[in-house]
Amino acid sequence: MIFENELVKVEIETSEVPWVKIFTQRKIKEFSECSVDEKLEIFRIIDVTEKYMLDYFKADKINIASFGNLLPHVHWHVMARFEADSYFPEPMWGEKQRQAELNLPSFEVFFTQLGEQL
Amino acid sequence: MIFENELVKVEIETSEVPWVKIFTQRKIKEFSECSVDEKLEIFRIIDVTEKYMLDYFKADKINIASFGNLLPHVHWHVMARFEADSYFPEPMWGEKQRQAELNLPSFEVFFTQLGEQL
Repeated sequence: MIFENELVKVEIETSEVPWVKIFTQRKIKEFSECSVDEKLEIFRIIDVTEKYMLDYFKADKINIASFGNLLPHVHWHVMARFEADSYFPEPMWGEKQRQAELNLPSFEVFFTQLGEQL
Repeated sequence: MIFENELVKVEIETSEVPWVKIFTQRKIKEFSECSVDEKLEIFRIIDVTEKYMLDYFKADKINIASFGNLLPHVHWHVMARFEADSYFPEPMWGEKQRQAELNLPSFEVFFTQLGEQL
C-alpha cells in the first residue's frame, strides 16, 4: 500500500507497467454508491497519479478503468502504457501482442514519491 | 449520438451489452488535460448512466474505462455487464467466455430515455 486515508487506499498492482489500484475503504459495489467525498478523492488521486506517470515514465498513454466483476468492491485501476509494452494498443486485459522488454525508471522510486505526493 | 453539449458528446457503442461512450468535444489526449468543467460533466454523465443502467437493465455490474490507446481523444466507456454475457467476468476487451443469449429490455428505449435524462 502506498497511501491511505479515511476514504480510500492506494495499492500497487505488480505488472510490467506502472499500475496502481484505488479502493474505497467502504465495501461498496458500484461507483454511483460512493459519497461525493469518496468520488472527489478518487478523482484527485487519478489526476495526481496520471500526471506523475506521464512526467516520470514519459508514458505514451494513461489507462483508467473500474470493473469489479470478480471483486465487487469499488476500485479503480490507473496504468501507464507504452507503445512497446506487451499488450499495447490492447487494454492490459486484452490479447498479448508481444513479449516486451521495457526499460523503465525505478518503479520503487516512483511509488514512494507518488505516495508522498498523495 | 444520444446527447451533446458544449463540453461532451455521448455516443452508443453497438454491442450485446448496453454501452455508451462519452467524448470530450475538445481533441485532448489525457484525462488530466480536461478542465474542471469537463471532468465534472464526464462524472455527472457516468453517474446518471450507471444508475439508469442498474435500474433499467438490472445489470449485475457496471464497468467504466478510459483507454484511448488507438484513438488518443479523451473518451470514457460505460458498460452494463451481466453474469451471463459473453465476456463476464472478463472486461469486454478480454477473452470470450461463452456465446451469450441475453434477453434484455429494449436498448432503443433505454438510449432514448438516457438521452432525455442527460
